[in-house]
Amino acid sequence: DYQNLDKLIIGVCGGDGIGPRITHEAERVVSWLLADKVRAGKVEFREIDGLTIENRVAHKKAIPDDVLAELKACHVILKGPTTTPRKGDKWPNIESANVAMRKELDLFANVRPVKVPEQGIDWTFFRENTEGAYTLGSSGLAADDDLSVDFTVTTTQGTERIARLAYDFARKNGKERVSIITKANVVKATDGKFLELCQNIGKEYPEIITDDWYIDITTAKLIDEKRRRDFKVFVLPNLYGDIITDEAAEFQGGVGTAGSANLGKRYAMFEAIHGSAPRMVDEGRDIYADPCSMLRAAVLMLSHVGYQQEADKLERALDICMYEEHKMQCTGRDTGCTCQQFGDYVMETIQKL
Amino acid sequence: DYQNLDKLIIGVCGGDGIGPRITHEAERVVSWLLADKVRAGKVEFREIDGLTIENRVAHKKAIPDDVLAELKACHVILKGPTTTPRKGDKWPNIESANVAMRKELDLFANVRPVKVPEQGIDWTFFRENTEGAYTLGSSGLAADDDLSVDFTVTTTQGTERIARLAYDFARKNGKERVSIITKANVVKATDGKFLELCQNIGKEYPEIITDDWYIDITTAKLIDEKRRRDFKVFVLPNLYGDIITDEAAEFQGGVGTAGSANLGKRYAMFEAIHGSAPRMVDEGRDIYADPCSMLRAAVLMLSHVGYQQEADKLERALDICMYEEHKMQCTGRDTGCTCQQFGDYVMETIQKL
Ligand SMILES: CC(C)[C@H](C(=O)O)[C@@H](O)C(=O)O
Ligand SMILES: CC(C)[C@H](C(=O)O)[C@@H](O)C(=O)O
Repeated sequence: DYQNLDKLIIGVCGGDGIGPRITHEAERVVSWLLADKVRAGKVEFREIDGLTIENRVAHKKAIPDDVLAELKACHVILKGPTTTPRKGDKWPNIESANVAMRKELDLFANVRPVKVPEQGIDWTFFRENTEGAYTLGSSGLAADDDLSVDFTVTTTQGTERIARLAYDFARKNGKERVSIITKANVVKATDGKFLELCQNIGKEYPEIITDDWYIDITTAKLIDEKRRRDFKVFVLPNLYGDIITDEAAEFQGGVGTAGSANLGKRYAMFEAIHGSAPRMVDEGRDIYADPCSMLRAAVLMLSHVGYQQEADKLERALDICMYEEHKMQCTGRDTGCTCQQFGDYVMETIQKL
Repeated sequence: DYQNLDKLIIGVCGGDGIGPRITHEAERVVSWLLADKVRAGKVEFREIDGLTIENRVAHKKAIPDDVLAELKACHVILKGPTTTPRKGDKWPNIESANVAMRKELDLFANVRPVKVPEQGIDWTFFRENTEGAYTLGSSGLAADDDLSVDFTVTTTQGTERIARLAYDFARKNGKERVSIITKANVVKATDGKFLELCQNIGKEYPEIITDDWYIDITTAKLIDEKRRRDFKVFVLPNLYGDIITDEAAEFQGGVGTAGSANLGKRYAMFEAIHGSAPRMVDEGRDIYADPCSMLRAAVLMLSHVGYQQEADKLERALDICMYEEHKMQCTGRDTGCTCQQFGDYVMETIQKL
C-alpha cells in the first residue's frame, strides 16, 4: 500500500524527442497538486535522465544497467515516449525501451482506459504486457536468406494474472461484461490457450458476462456506433492489445490523448501511448508539444498510488480543457498554445473546480 | 487468359449457414448477366457441394480430397462462407476451409477493395494470404501444460510476389502511393523482412510513393477523416491484413458488404469476408440473409476473368441498391427484403442502367 510508505518515490524519465518536455510538464502539474505532500517529505520526484536514445545506443542496451537500478529504486515511474530504432535508421538495432522496461520490471498488465462520454464509450483494455509476440523481442530467427521465423508465447501464469486483474477490475467497478479478444481460430496454440484460460477465470465471476470475439471483427465493432457501447472491459494478448488500443484512442481524440498504466506486482510505470515525435524537435516545434497523454498517464498514476482526489481533479480538468472548452490546443502551429501554456490552463481550471 | 478458354468453368461452393443462399443468389445474378455466354457454351457454372462442415467433419479434413479435386477442375471459384470449428463447439478441431483452400490452391494474394466515394475513401488491400501467422495452421506447439508457442513465417518469394502484385496494381491504376504495414519494431525477423523486401520492390516503381506504418497506428489513421484519404494501396502480412480489412469494411457498411479476391498463379477464388451466420439459419431468418458481399465478390470475379463490362454494371447497380436508394435491406427483420428480393432488385436496376 503506497499510502503507508514513509516516502513515495516517483521516478521521472523524460525519454526522447518531445518526451522530456511533456513529461516535465506533467510533473509540474502533479507536483503542484501534491505540493503539501512534497513539502511534508511524503512524496519525492526523482529525475532519471539516462533513458535517452543516445545513452542507450552508447551502452548497446535497451535499458543501461545503471538506469535500470535507478528505476528499481523508485516506487512508480512516469515515463515519456522513447525512440525505438528502426532498420535503416541511424541507430543500431536495440530493443524498444518500453518493451524492455515492461519485461525487466515484470509489468505484466497494460491498462488503457478510453472514454468518450457523449458517445457512451467507456472502455478499459487489459493488455497482457510481457508475452505473446513480444516474448523474445528481437530474437526472431533468420533461418536462412529466404525464410524468417518469429515466435509467439502464451503461458498459464501470464494469462491468468492478466485475466484476474481484468475481472477484479470489472467486479470492483460494477462493469457487467468482460470481452476476451483473440484470433484463436487461426493462432490456435497460444490464442487458444489464452481464450480458454480467460474463460475459466471468468467462471469465478458469475455476475459478470464473458464473451469472446476475434480481433479482426472487433476492430470493426468498435466503429459500429450501435454496438460499441456494449463493450466495457477487454482482456487481450499483447499484440492485439497494442493494435486495438491505438484504434480505440482515436475515438477519444487520438493516441496523443491517451495514457497507459503498466502494472506489475512490485513496480508500476505510467506513459503516453504515442511516440517521441523527433520531427517536432527537428523543426523546432517542440514547445508546442501536447502534454495531454502524459497528463492522462499522471491521472492513472495518482489513482494507482491512492491520491484519488487529486486524480479526479486532474481528470475533470483535462476533460474540460480537452473537450468541453476546446479553447486550447497544442498543435505546433502559430495558433496553438505551447505545452507550458496548456499546463497552466489545466492548473487554472483545477483552481476553479 | 480466361477469354481464350473454350469454356470458362466457374465452381460454386455454397458453404455453410447462410452461405448456400447468398452464394446461389449471386450465381443467379451472374448467370443472368452472362446468359448469352452460358447459352453459347462459353461459360459453365459447376456446383461443388461437398464443402459443408458436416462433410468436412466426416472426412476429418478442412477440404476432403474429392472436393479438392473438383475445385482444381474449375478455373475460378465463387465460395460462400464456411463454418470454422472453435474449441468448445460441437465440431472437432479441423482447419478453416478458406485458410486451407488458400494454401492448397496457392492463392497467395487476398485483394480487398473498400470504397466510400462520398468520404474520399478508395482503398485496395493486398494481404499476403498463405504465410505469416497462418503458415502452420493448427500446428502450434503446446510445449507443456504451462507454455504454448505459435510460429510466424515470412519467405522472400512469398513477400516479393504479393509486393509486386500491389505495385503493379498501383501502376496500372494510377495510384500514387503504396503503404507497407507491419509491426517491424517488435516482430523483427518476419515483419522486418517483409518491410525490407517490399521497400526494395518499391524502388522498381519510382513514380509511386512508398511509405510504411506500424499496424497499431494504422488502425487509428483509418478513422482519421483528414488523413485516411491519403491511403490508396496497402500491402501487408496475412494477420494484419485480416485484422485491418474488417475495420476498413466497416466504413463501407460492414463486413457484410465486402467481397474479397483470393488470387494465385493458377487458380482464383472469390468470397465474402464475413462468416456463415449459423444463428440466422437456426432462427429461420436465413431467407433475409444479405447477399451483398457475395455480389461484391462476383464483381471481382467478373472483372478478373475479363468480363469487365458485366463487372462494371453489377458494381454500379450495387452502389445504387446499397447506398444511393437505400430502399432495400436484408436485415432478417419484418421490414427487410429477402435475399431473393434483393437479387431481383439488383437485376431490375441493371436493366435500367
Ligand atoms: C513503441 C512500441 C514498441 C510499443 C508497443 O508495441 O508496445 C507501443 O506501440 C505501445 O503500444 O506502447
Ligand atoms: C475465418 C477466418 C479463418 C478468416 C481468416 O482469418 O483469414 C477470415 O477472417 C477472413 O478474413 O477470410
